[in-house]
Amino acid sequence: MDEFEIIRQFFARESSNDSVITGVGDDGAVTRPAGGRDLITVIDTLVAGIHFPPSLDAADAGYRAVAVNVSDIAAMGGRPTWMTLALTLREADPDWLRCFARGFFAAADEYGVTLTGGDTTRGRELVITVQMNGEVVPGAVMMRSGARAGDRIYVTGTPGDAAAGLSIMQGSAESNDDNDYLLRRFVRPSARVAIGRAVATVASAAIDLSDGLFTDIEKLLSASTVAGSIELKHLPLSPQISRVMAWEEAARFALGGGDDYELCFTTAATDDAIQATVAGHDVAVTHIGEVSDGQGLNCTLEGKPYTYQNDGYRHFN
Amino acid sequence: MDEFEIIRQFFARESSNDSVITGVGDDGAVTRPAGGRDLITVIDTLVAGIHFPPSLDAADAGYRAVAVNVSDIAAMGGRPTWMTLALTLREADPDWLRCFARGFFAAADEYGVTLTGGDTTRGRELVITVQMNGEVVPGAVMMRSGARAGDRIYVTGTPGDAAAGLSIMQGSAESNDDNDYLLRRFVRPSARVAIGRAVATVASAAIDLSDGLFTDIEKLLSASTVAGSIELKHLPLSPQISRVMAWEEAARFALGGGDDYELCFTTAATDDAIQATVAGHDVAVTHIGEVSDGQGLNCTLEGKPYTYQNDGYRHFN
Repeated sequence: MDEFEIIRQFFARESSNDSVITGVGDDGAVTRPAGGRDLITVIDTLVAGIHFPPSLDAADAGYRAVAVNVSDIAAMGGRPTWMTLALTLREADPDWLRCFARGFFAAADEYGVTLTGGDTTRGRELVITVQMNGEVVPGAVMMRSGARAGDRIYVTGTPGDAAAGLSIMQGSAESNDDNDYLLRRFVRPSARVAIGRAVATVASAAIDLSDGLFTDIEKLLSASTVAGSIELKHLPLSPQISRVMAWEEAARFALGGGDDYELCFTTAATDDAIQATVAGHDVAVTHIGEVSDGQGLNCTLEGKPYTYQNDGYRHFN
Repeated sequence: MDEFEIIRQFFARESSNDSVITGVGDDGAVTRPAGGRDLITVIDTLVAGIHFPPSLDAADAGYRAVAVNVSDIAAMGGRPTWMTLALTLREADPDWLRCFARGFFAAADEYGVTLTGGDTTRGRELVITVQMNGEVVPGAVMMRSGARAGDRIYVTGTPGDAAAGLSIMQGSAESNDDNDYLLRRFVRPSARVAIGRAVATVASAAIDLSDGLFTDIEKLLSASTVAGSIELKHLPLSPQISRVMAWEEAARFALGGGDDYELCFTTAATDDAIQATVAGHDVAVTHIGEVSDGQGLNCTLEGKPYTYQNDGYRHFN
């Protein structure tokens, strides 16, 4: 099976997206940006054995490769539109490709993003790179650099679940409702597009949680040249993670675990205004900390200073 | 050296490009498409040991990764604008990264394309994926599918040189002017942006030559559901390739070698009109064949049927 056959058999689909002038199969894709919108461009690579266990189901790998890119667009307040896929494969295994494409297009359909092209190559390991475009109204984009002293720090959903799920996948935990829920939060993360667009109207800065809440908040604060603190007792933990482990362990997953793809944002708006903004969305947002002058991120535990040893993931370290 | 340090030290540059609203360093890039233009999106992966010899100089690998993407945009008649880089590295070697970035930005500057973001990951082998955007006036885009019976087939430059250069690199040929010229055509291919935009006004279809002239013309004809023939004696061979090998071998490199990144296009215009269109450009265009009804590509040698055994490169075969 050569690369043309792979594209034809697994990745060429009829598109009903009017903004796609030329899709899969030419030298490049041609798309028509909406007038008066800025273009968001993100690119994320997943390497088997580094970003996910080699045992991960191909459909989940496909889903995840799309969702993590959608999450980056959500973190800027955008709406995903088109994407390309660069797939480096060890071999052209039709069963694997069929499963991968099923998960890939499940996410594409869920988030309303159209595959417009790509490149398929051979290599010694599986490398999945998805590049995605989104659109945003100029001025509505959320950057990492807009946080100001006095702003409050919010997070969506319940961070820590995905990392707990990964540890369950890598261990030998039994299958039960709680474990299965957490595992699913790792393999099928939810990109927060709708809530990202909603809070873009009131947020001063935002980032999505890929490397761990602590590390990602540090990045946001650093980009904004401000300091911050978070109160660990305010971390929103899921009922599932709270049932399967002690609070201390759950909090550690929430702070350092990564792979949540929740959004963290800062805002000068009141909590009432924030809750009104996100009313009707299917995920809660929780006030977890404050922005101040200075630099660095501190933690408190019930108001008292708490020294957190960050082990957030960084490549090459 | 972690991924943030790699970005900061080697890939973050001040941009003077007004269309870049947010560049390297946020969740994604934000750019502002020109009004009334369509967006071209291409993505191309180079795997060390598959797409280039592992011994290739890092600066040449960087240059090449940009140029091959620019070539895809040129083949659609577009102008390159922005790009992202997904780099999977075995290790963070500062010397390698410094050289890579030098070649990468040499090409970026030459073709006027701005790096706006990327992703750096660790893996077992070097995988370089560049994703690039370009812009084109709606209606001016050259697709592969527009060739019609009666059109003539043209090619820019002198195909075969790059493949001859690769064979020189892999062999033990001496360094001399001709060999060095051919080798350079492989390591530093020229993307034909200006001539692509010029011929877009008169071409019915176009493709860039990455897999070999014969294979790539076959793709264009297949996408256009037409047949074609090329006259081997009309293949434009460079003085350099003609001096270092016999005509038969040079013609074989030209037909099957690949990596030329020349443009092949079809047109209903007269040769006089074509030559007037490309006058003043630094590369010649040569009429090498004809489009007809039917399917498939045939060769002639001085007008007589010639059976060419195509061995154009296809991944996974």
